[in-house]
Amino acid sequence: MENIRFGIAGCGGIAARFAKALVLSAGTELAACAARNLDRAQAFAQAHGQGKPVRAYGNYQELMEDPNVDAVYIATVHTTHAQIAKQAILVGKAVLCEKPFFTNSREAREVIALAREKSVPMMEAFWTRTLPAYRKAKEWIREGKIGDVTLIRAAFCFCNPCTEQSRSHRIWNPEVGGGAMLDIGVYPYEYVTGILEAPPEKFHYTVLPGPTGVDATVAMTLEYPGALAECLASIAGHMDTTARISGTKGYIEQSVFYGAREARLFDNQNRLLEEFQDSQEEGFVHEIAHFVDLLRSGKTESRWIPLADALDFAEKADLVLGALRG
Amino acid sequence: MENIRFGIAGCGGIAARFAKALVLSAGTELAACAARNLDRAQAFAQAHGQGKPVRAYGNYQELMEDPNVDAVYIATVHTTHAQIAKQAILVGKAVLCEKPFFTNSREAREVIALAREKSVPMMEAFWTRTLPAYRKAKEWIREGKIGDVTLIRAAFCFCNPCTEQSRSHRIWNPEVGGGAMLDIGVYPYEYVTGILEAPPEKFHYTVLPGPTGVDATVAMTLEYPGALAECLASIAGHMDTTARISGTKGYIEQSVFYGAREARLFDNQNRLLEEFQDSQEEGFVHEIAHFVDLLRSGKTESRWIPLADALDFAEKADLVLGALRG
Repeated sequence: MENIRFGIAGCGGIAARFAKALVLSAGTELAACAARNLDRAQAFAQAHGQGKPVRAYGNYQELMEDPNVDAVYIATVHTTHAQIAKQAILVGKAVLCEKPFFTNSREAREVIALAREKSVPMMEAFWTRTLPAYRKAKEWIREGKIGDVTLIRAAFCFCNPCTEQSRSHRIWNPEVGGGAMLDIGVYPYEYVTGILEAPPEKFHYTVLPGPTGVDATVAMTLEYPGALAECLASIAGHMDTTARISGTKGYIEQSVFYGAREARLFDNQNRLLEEFQDSQEEGFVHEIAHFVDLLRSGKTESRWIPLADALDFAEKADLVLGALRG
Repeated sequence: MENIRFGIAGCGGIAARFAKALVLSAGTELAACAARNLDRAQAFAQAHGQGKPVRAYGNYQELMEDPNVDAVYIATVHTTHAQIAKQAILVGKAVLCEKPFFTNSREAREVIALAREKSVPMMEAFWTRTLPAYRKAKEWIREGKIGDVTLIRAAFCFCNPCTEQSRSHRIWNPEVGGGAMLDIGVYPYEYVTGILEAPPEKFHYTVLPGPTGVDATVAMTLEYPGALAECLASIAGHMDTTARISGTKGYIEQSVFYGAREARLFDNQNRLLEEFQDSQEEGFVHEIAHFVDLLRSGKTESRWIPLADALDFAEKADLVLGALRG
């Protein structure tokens, strides 16, 4: 079976990580890359070509017109995702798009509708849900090992104080979709909706602006029948990144939950019952394998990362960011 | 200086722990105890007398009338706190009252007003705030060691599934003030208000009822200017009980935060800078020492546990429990 030939849109840090993961991924190859700056794309192509030629483009449309590209991985700044995804869909290229999928629900609805209309495979790069440690946690839950899920708690926070120097950093810049919600709020939120396999019945949030006006901290409470989840995202303070899923019979813990390599199952007396460890250090490999499976199966939507979930998150982001803007 | 002579109202588990802590506390003695059942009070007196006679009463009024009791420690079921506190105040006995101080804000306001009117010392038994590890955390914050506080996260949750057998348990019984908010929600809430030394500017909550109608899970978000705190309380699921206080320059962690014996100070690169360990295993000893200091100083209110804070929590509990009752 022939390789899936990837074109990467955007040549920053996350693109580099993805390119390295492609090397570890069977049945794939890096065919091309594009950046707004051709020199940057050429340097990226050289760095990640593994000795083979990788075509470099100085704009995204040329990447789309490359007949030797099967799928486009979008790794540009958030605010350009929708436009680039539409370009890809219109030429029939499969789309794997980094989080936040789109910066608002209008964009999300429009692009999802277009992908469905054109029957083009599209997936949010929500790699957490493809990780074997996450799949194992879901398997334990399905098997009833923690009883009924009652509580989930997950926080993704880091401290990047807004100083004179850091004010121009992407994360503090409202112009390029900076702030906690879009960048990292998506991780605890979609971690939870993936575990409970539904959007919350009710959604409560508190948002605290930082000095540049972006959402520095967002606390979210997701209400389900019989279960409640507490999600926290902040760029203004540290928190432990171990997520816990608690149920009537026990609980599951995952360290660094958004890129979990392990899952631990405990009973209600805090006794460790089972432990799972992923031997693959680069979690993007699982995401790529899942996306490749999707393409090879002829399906257009992942059952693990449904487009509806990305749209649901975009709707929640609208609420949170709308509240901030007044 | 003469001993402070304590009378204990209520002879259950928490009363026994307090009596044992009194033995470890200089300048105090157990003079009397009372329960609704005289046999129970007599057994308690015998068990905790340390060979000396402790008077036992079969009702609380007799305890109040004992001229050899200086202070009353109220350790009865929540719903009786207000009545017993009033009895004590009216005869001029100092009051140390277990949490929840009172089960609603009307009671809280009434009893606090009475104590102030009669100039009787009264304190909520919120021992967390008297712990040296908590005082150390506050000292580090005051010294600017974590910069400006931006985020606090604290959860007190345990799993007591509501089975046929456990439905009659106090914690699931709405008649005696069962549920998460009053029993354990007070811990993360007042931990935070003590750290930030003010009630929140805005208070957000989500409450999930359990099978008996009590509040099984309560998620609270406390909004301050520039800071946000996430508090979780549940009797329907486990969570880690390490609290974290994060700021612009670093963070503080406290394991089992509600009875913390340690505090750890980290910088923003997760480097441990300082560590504090309390050698006293029984935290109630610190609470008793603080209360005794209060009485000896002739003051009527603790600066560490102001009555206004207990009233503030009672007001929040009104909101949460009112929402549940519709």
